[in-house]
Amino acid sequence: MIHGGLIYHLGVDPSLVLDFSSNVNPYGPPEGAIQAAQRALLNAKFYPDPSHTMLKEAFSGWIGVDPRMVCFGNGASELIGAIIMAEKPKRLLAFTPTFGEYQAWAKRLAVPFEGIPLRGHAFDPPIEDLRRSIRPGDMFVICQPNNPTGRAYSGKEIRAITSACEDGRALLLVDECFINLTSPPAESIIRDGTVPENSLILRAFTKDFSAPGLRVGAAVASPERIVRIRQCLQPWPINCAGEAFARWCSLNPEPFLSDSRNNLASERQILSDSLEGLGFEVLPSQSNFLLCVAPLDSAILGARLRPHRILIRTCGSFQLGNRYVRLAVKDRASNLAFIKALKEVLKGG
Amino acid sequence: MIHGGLIYHLGVDPSLVLDFSSNVNPYGPPEGAIQAAQRALLNAKFYPDPSHTMLKEAFSGWIGVDPRMVCFGNGASELIGAIIMAEKPKRLLAFTPTFGEYQAWAKRLAVPFEGIPLRGHAFDPPIEDLRRSIRPGDMFVICQPNNPTGRAYSGKEIRAITSACEDGRALLLVDECFINLTSPPAESIIRDGTVPENSLILRAFTKDFSAPGLRVGAAVASPERIVRIRQCLQPWPINCAGEAFARWCSLNPEPFLSDSRNNLASERQILSDSLEGLGFEVLPSQSNFLLCVAPLDSAILGARLRPHRILIRTCGSFQLGNRYVRLAVKDRASNLAFIKALKEVLKGG
Repeated sequence: MIHGGLIYHLGVDPSLVLDFSSNVNPYGPPEGAIQAAQRALLNAKFYPDPSHTMLKEAFSGWIGVDPRMVCFGNGASELIGAIIMAEKPKRLLAFTPTFGEYQAWAKRLAVPFEGIPLRGHAFDPPIEDLRRSIRPGDMFVICQPNNPTGRAYSGKEIRAITSACEDGRALLLVDECFINLTSPPAESIIRDGTVPENSLILRAFTKDFSAPGLRVGAAVASPERIVRIRQCLQPWPINCAGEAFARWCSLNPEPFLSDSRNNLASERQILSDSLEGLGFEVLPSQSNFLLCVAPLDSAILGARLRPHRILIRTCGSFQLGNRYVRLAVKDRASNLAFIKALKEVLKGG
Repeated sequence: MIHGGLIYHLGVDPSLVLDFSSNVNPYGPPEGAIQAAQRALLNAKFYPDPSHTMLKEAFSGWIGVDPRMVCFGNGASELIGAIIMAEKPKRLLAFTPTFGEYQAWAKRLAVPFEGIPLRGHAFDPPIEDLRRSIRPGDMFVICQPNNPTGRAYSGKEIRAITSACEDGRALLLVDECFINLTSPPAESIIRDGTVPENSLILRAFTKDFSAPGLRVGAAVASPERIVRIRQCLQPWPINCAGEAFARWCSLNPEPFLSDSRNNLASERQILSDSLEGLGFEVLPSQSNFLLCVAPLDSAILGARLRPHRILIRTCGSFQLGNRYVRLAVKDRASNLAFIKALKEVLKGG
């Protein structure tokens, strides 16, 4: 079964499930954004604007870049494919474990993929291995902060990665889909409205604004690269509801995001302490999710939690050991209910 | 500018524009379907079901095939790409002129494309040319009925095309996105719940149910092919609003579609007669759109109609002569307003 589908196979209404496998912002979606999407449906009989003029203006204004430096896709995932089609790298490289869609798109597009294992239990980036592996014409992708580890690369690490790609005449794709939910804030490679010449950035509305049911992602790069990426997308990659939602969020990101970040930081601490008290090893995270080593096999833990209508993410698809789980940080009530259920299922030993 | 965007560049509300360039069913979208999509947005915080279980059941029930024979994408266009990725044809062939996204996807995916020109002014299918051109491992795509000509291939022609592909050990992709709006009904290659082994079919909700602002298309093929196509799509190709809309339509296609077809047939006759009275040559069409040779250059005609807030589709992108226009058949009031405006702009000579 594809990840994310389990919620539909428990035989209960999704709203009755505590889905700790879904690492989106637990504090949304903003009501105004949903209403904007609902209103947009009244215009479903018109083709969406393929130039995304209004959304471009709103989003680029928010992140502070030239509107010609952005384009949109049906979720960040579609954009990964379009970027690979547009740039035609010889190989795709990534530090592993990481988000599975990079390798999946490489396979779909018959581009060789090579994983460079992150180092040790702290998942440190092996910059020297990257320098040794990378070749002209390659594309290297990092997830900042990384999924599933929750670890953000430091400014120094990001600069080392950027220069390794520059020196190796390779492209750098930085997936920043979780960056707005990090605290302390992870470093973006978008700085003062510019991006390094050899770089492309992914952003998404899904995680930030709690709307995995709507699919809008954005690519940020030089205007020349954006023109090429746009040509690799179908004429209407996002629908009217997604467009209206993303536009509302781009115009009203605050105080929603700051409040979410602040709440997530304190909830993460509480959840982390509680998990450690229950025998979990919790890896350091700046993100809205925690990679943990559970005190028992993650499949068994998942099965025991299911009668409580709680889902967790086992990490088999990330090629991690069978006790690794990725847990979303949720709101207070959900986290408390989760810890309560955990205490019960762990009593069994 | 990409086709479909012009409506956003007239500086007026889209609802004030008569868009004869957009060939969707003029009688929708069904109110119940829009309401279903609006309700679905209230669940935007949940990931959509990646298996599309409920939509699969509804859609396959409607068209009478096994649920394992269908999958869904963000509009039929996304599925063209996924099908090419999944089947990896050596070349993509098509009768031309036809819908531009086949060639666009071939280019995106670096698959050689070859157009086989339709024959003469009636755009007859050159079966012998197809037999001569096709080679094992190729994929041949037809649009049934064809866009922009509006001509549907007869049952005999479809069988000749199918056997030419079988004999040539090539795949056949049949884009049936307009088929539900044809009258007399064009022949589908889905028969009694089965499809020819070497075939794949595209359907879309956009045209039938008047919702280009929502993007849901479907692929129909053998269960084995569907598994491969699904792997070439991202985990969540359609969003919650699109899914709910498509499900409602699949459960309630009638009497909406029959009524639409009947109305379109009589409106097409009236529009066609009026156009001929104004000096247009109207090519025979079973579809909800008409390919015409205008009495003057289509770009000039388009420019003269624009102050009337009327858009038409010039056919330069289809490599047709500069007097060809594709006109949608709309509802009575729109068609009358169009003919009235045409009379005025043609007075100028």
